[in-house]
Amino acid sequence: MEQLIVEKQILELGLDKNQVIVLDSGKSFGPISIAYEIIGTLNEKKDNAILICHALSGDSHVAGKYALEDKKPGWWDVMVGPGKPFDTDTYCIICSNTLGGCRGTTGPASINPVTEKPYALDFPVITINDMVKVQKLLIDHLGIQQLYCVAGGSMGGMQALAWIINFPSMVRSAAIIASAAYTSSLGIAFDKVGRNAIMSDPNFGSGDYYGRTLPRHGLAIARMIGHITYLSDESMRKKFSRSLQDKDELSFELSDDFAVESYLEYQGGSFVQRFDANSYLYVTKAMDYFDLPGKYGSLEKALKDVTARMLVVSFTSDWLFPTYQSVEIVKALMKNRKDVSFCEIQSSAGHDAFLLEFEKLGRILQSFLGNGRTGS
Amino acid sequence: MEQLIVEKQILELGLDKNQVIVLDSGKSFGPISIAYEIIGTLNEKKDNAILICHALSGDSHVAGKYALEDKKPGWWDVMVGPGKPFDTDTYCIICSNTLGGCRGTTGPASINPVTEKPYALDFPVITINDMVKVQKLLIDHLGIQQLYCVAGGSMGGMQALAWIINFPSMVRSAAIIASAAYTSSLGIAFDKVGRNAIMSDPNFGSGDYYGRTLPRHGLAIARMIGHITYLSDESMRKKFSRSLQDKDELSFELSDDFAVESYLEYQGGSFVQRFDANSYLYVTKAMDYFDLPGKYGSLEKALKDVTARMLVVSFTSDWLFPTYQSVEIVKALMKNRKDVSFCEIQSSAGHDAFLLEFEKLGRILQSFLGNGRTGS
Repeated sequence: MEQLIVEKQILELGLDKNQVIVLDSGKSFGPISIAYEIIGTLNEKKDNAILICHALSGDSHVAGKYALEDKKPGWWDVMVGPGKPFDTDTYCIICSNTLGGCRGTTGPASINPVTEKPYALDFPVITINDMVKVQKLLIDHLGIQQLYCVAGGSMGGMQALAWIINFPSMVRSAAIIASAAYTSSLGIAFDKVGRNAIMSDPNFGSGDYYGRTLPRHGLAIARMIGHITYLSDESMRKKFSRSLQDKDELSFELSDDFAVESYLEYQGGSFVQRFDANSYLYVTKAMDYFDLPGKYGSLEKALKDVTARMLVVSFTSDWLFPTYQSVEIVKALMKNRKDVSFCEIQSSAGHDAFLLEFEKLGRILQSFLGNGRTGS
Repeated sequence: MEQLIVEKQILELGLDKNQVIVLDSGKSFGPISIAYEIIGTLNEKKDNAILICHALSGDSHVAGKYALEDKKPGWWDVMVGPGKPFDTDTYCIICSNTLGGCRGTTGPASINPVTEKPYALDFPVITINDMVKVQKLLIDHLGIQQLYCVAGGSMGGMQALAWIINFPSMVRSAAIIASAAYTSSLGIAFDKVGRNAIMSDPNFGSGDYYGRTLPRHGLAIARMIGHITYLSDESMRKKFSRSLQDKDELSFELSDDFAVESYLEYQGGSFVQRFDANSYLYVTKAMDYFDLPGKYGSLEKALKDVTARMLVVSFTSDWLFPTYQSVEIVKALMKNRKDVSFCEIQSSAGHDAFLLEFEKLGRILQSFLGNGRTGS
């Protein structure tokens, strides 16, 4: 198959005051740059666009490569491309880096026009809603009145939920994968410890570490904690068991002995190369704040105006966003007599299943997307 | 009920060479001090002694108070005392701080007689077996030839398993509670991240922080991670839900908002007052090294010489030491035609259930202990 080559684009907003957004905190914020990538062609009616929303550590680079020599394609390349579930021969796939991120969209590492230095902790606390408000500016800019679908896993699913609630007429269908209508206290707990690790790294200072030594240790610890929660007891048993790393016997040293330790060490180390610690603080905080039942009184009330055709998918071994949280969404939609399909996929891969179980998930998504196709 | 007043005692060993132990690593080690507490009276035959083995953060102070004005009694006070499941009117309860600990038994904070400074990282890497070798010296010292029972939860259960394998004739019965025959890769993963947090704390230095600023942040993070793994999604939902701490609205600050965050902060902060970071490294490493199937070829082989009457207890919501790991022990015992009872207790309390579900667990233990009573 021919290699899909994609390009990151930047939309600059906020040069005039109309493009400054009002955040959920009440603060106005701008200017805003949005990094986004488009794969496939927007048709004349502009009704074949699918917005894919990324998870905590994702970015706009959803599929393809920037150049042939790139080692890896985008994060959901197995799902997005010609003939793939998100079929770029049919659909125009849009993916943008979220507000607060560190991959081109305005975030804490961006320059604060007032101080002409990076925002650092002067960046405002944002919400999933705020991320979606920014995405809407991009969709408006592209002249799209209605998205064929908004889809996302994990935090991406939260954004899709915010879309169908805030802009119901703009979303024809939505796929909520391995996600939830609120972050559980378990999720908040892990996020809190990750933030604590970052903020107690002596290189963190008060977040103003740009151009200096970065709080690598703290961010690596946060990432390692995250990684454990993305796996499952079963997937770790299958993947690592109690195998030793590069040795035949226990070392009787305090250093790493086991393969799972080396794996985490590697994951932590590689993450700090590509992710900004302050973004980790802001994006996890946005997730922790996500609470549709709390905001609307009940999940049923939150979803009452939804018009999108819905797909909800969970995975059996996902203990970070367990099936019961998907079922809560499904039940609330059904009580509102909405069009919803639900599937719990058998998988040992834990939360990461939304990235790994691409065959099972792909078939379900393909069928869901195809069901609503207009023949365009 | 009258308050049980107990006393911590210290046994000093190793003044002659016969009392230096050979560790699993092959190194000789001594001298060794053992902190222990005894509740109840050893009968003339010395056949009513029960050894209780503590978990990672426990110590010899299993029950009662040192003085009336103490705020809290020992860690398993609900289970140990007159008329309680471990009935001190009948049994003589012994509990000692493990080797490598920081509550009186020799550990990394103890003075290395060679350097006359604390061992710090010169302390040898130890195993659960090594802890049990030291306990055996205490039991020998007390003149006890056979323990009526060895009981423990979590890491305490690992020690009980090591007892029945290494000294089968010395153990009449054993209760293995919320434990496992090996630490899973999930368990190793969490332990590794905790150790990493401690060792990347700038105050850790090379472990030689005694008398200086302690690596509090790192140890607090390790403890917070641990605490999450001792709870369950369900227990956290029941206990915290998404309640805010001391506020009515989200702060839109990066600081803690939720009750679960304050809880973890408190747990982390109080732990560093009472636990040595180096002990955390050594004791978690000992747990990670525990692997009966790996050591003996199979769990069935490991347990073939066991003569103790066995009780194995697990809890439904314990995801750190899940029921399947208890079942593995039970199956291996049954294949060896050993006398074993198994109970999975319905509980939402997670791994901490072994400390919290004292009524259910108490009834089972009482019945198990009573079944083998000699009428003494």
